[in-house]
Parts: sequence; structure tokens; C-alpha cells
Amino acid sequence: MHSKFLGAALALALGSGYAQDAFAQVKPEVMVEQRQAAMRLQAKYLFPLVPMAQGKIPWDAAIVTRNAGYLDVLIRLAWDGFDPGTQGVKSRALPEIYSDPAKFKAAQETVFADMTKFVTAAKSGNEAAAKTAIGDVAKACSGCHDTFRQRQ
Amino acid sequence: MHSKFLGAALALALGSGYAQDAFAQVKPEVMVEQRQAAMRLQAKYLFPLVPMAQGKIPWDAAIVTRNAGYLDVLIRLAWDGFDPGTQGVKSRALPEIYSDPAKFKAAQETVFADMTKFVTAAKSGNEAAAKTAIGDVAKACSGCHDTFRQRQ
Repeated sequence: MHSKFLGAALALALGSGYAQDAFAQVKPEVMVEQRQAAMRLQAKYLFPLVPMAQGKIPWDAAIVTRNAGYLDVLIRLAWDGFDPGTQGVKSRALPEIYSDPAKFKAAQETVFADMTKFVTAAKSGNEAAAKTAIGDVAKACSGCHDTFRQRQ
Repeated sequence: MHSKFLGAALALALGSGYAQDAFAQVKPEVMVEQRQAAMRLQAKYLFPLVPMAQGKIPWDAAIVTRNAGYLDVLIRLAWDGFDPGTQGVKSRALPEIYSDPAKFKAAQETVFADMTKFVTAAKSGNEAAAKTAIGDVAKACSGCHDTFRQRQ
């Protein structure tokens, strides 16, 4: 079984820019791609909720609950990609991430707290609280971007 | 609150290539980026488990359980990106995805079943079953890629 298993793993690895050596450090450019991937998916599942929270389109409790579950995971996946070793890779990440790690950490904790409120509200079917929390999550995202991401 | 809220949403949108109109269809190239993002993150959290399952590095139950929870969400996020409207966008997706949707759906169900086994084993602390399931998930990934993804 092990050789087949290894074959599968290598096939996956070869298709994804990973080093074939399982012990190798993840390359900085891969770390940047991974953190950008996490934020892209956060956008995919947060954005459709915003017009619902604003009352511009009908509230769909099934979509809201599903996306809350997805976002509860997705919100955790970018942070370890902000490794000092990635500073040489082209991205919109600002140096403040590394020069003021306490502030960056605080921004992380803000969005975690807002996300927890959202997930709790969505799971308990508290539509009003969920709507407020969606706004708070969006504001936490934007707040962090305003400080730590280069404007386009 | 609504205007601030909208501002935050638009700021997010502008940074992510989304249409500003909440009702607009997601663009095909964005759908491709989103499905690639999902697979990139699947790789991030699956690959480190493979050498653990193979006994090449120590089994870390905390990492395994955490990644199982992440992957249980991540495995669900790419499929809706294989919209027929994306066929004009450059990617490694093969036409078989659209010409044989039943086979594509079956591949999806295989990896869902393998992932469920993995998550169950990881959560219950069944190391042997989790190791087998990690191999099965990796094989399901590769099997689908072999059939539906262009070789590099």
C-alpha cells in the first residue's frame, strides 16, 4: 500500500508546486499563494451574505448557516502564511504586519470574535444578530486591509 | 449603519475582483480562481498528513484532528466552480468534466466518502483508521486529477 500511497501523494505534490520532499519547508511563494487562496474563499462565502444582511436580497437561512460554517474554518487559514520569510514575495502585504505584530494579532482577534458571534447567531437562527455580525465581520476584514494591505 | 456597512463590503469587493453589483453573476475567471484556491488549501492541509500516515514523521494527533476539520470544509468548496461557463477560461480542467458529469459527480462522491471516514477516525482518535483514510483521500484526489485534469 505504501508505494501506491506515495505515488498518489507525489502526483498531488507535482501538480501543486510543492517540493517532493515531505520534510522540505514550504516555499515563501507557496505560502503567499495559500494565504491569498484563503482570503479569496473568505470573499466567496462572505460577499453573498452582505446584501442579505442589508435587506437587499431575501435572507436565505440555509445559505447563511452553510457559509457561517465554511467561514468559521476559512477565517483561520491565512494567518500562518504571513511568515517573515515571505516579505520578498510580491504581494499587497504591508511591512506593518511584521513591524507591529501586536497590532496585527489584535486585528486577527477582532475578526475571530466577530466570526464567533456570527456563527453562534447563524446556528441558533437569530437573524437579527446574524445580520449585525455579518456587518461586523465585513468591517473587521476591511479594517485589517486598511491597515495592513496596500491599496490598489 | 448601512452606509458604513456598504462601504466595507465595497472595499472588500474592490480588492477581490468582484463586481460591485451584489446581484451580478460571479465572473468565470473568478470562479476558476476560487476553485483553484480551494484545491490549493486542500493541498496545504492534506500534504503534511501523508508522511505522518506513512510513518515517515511522527503522528501528531492535534494537527491531524485540526486538519481533518479544515479539510472536511475545504473538500466541499471547489465543485460549484466547475460551471460550464468557465470552459473558456485557461485552466487544467479537462472537457470530460462537462461531457461526463455523472463520472465527475461519482469522483466527488468518492472523495466525500473517504473524507467522512477520515474525519470520523480523526475525531475518535482511531490512528490506524485515520492513516488508511488519509491514503484513501489522497488516492481519491489523484484519481480525479488523473481523469479530469490536464497533465502538466
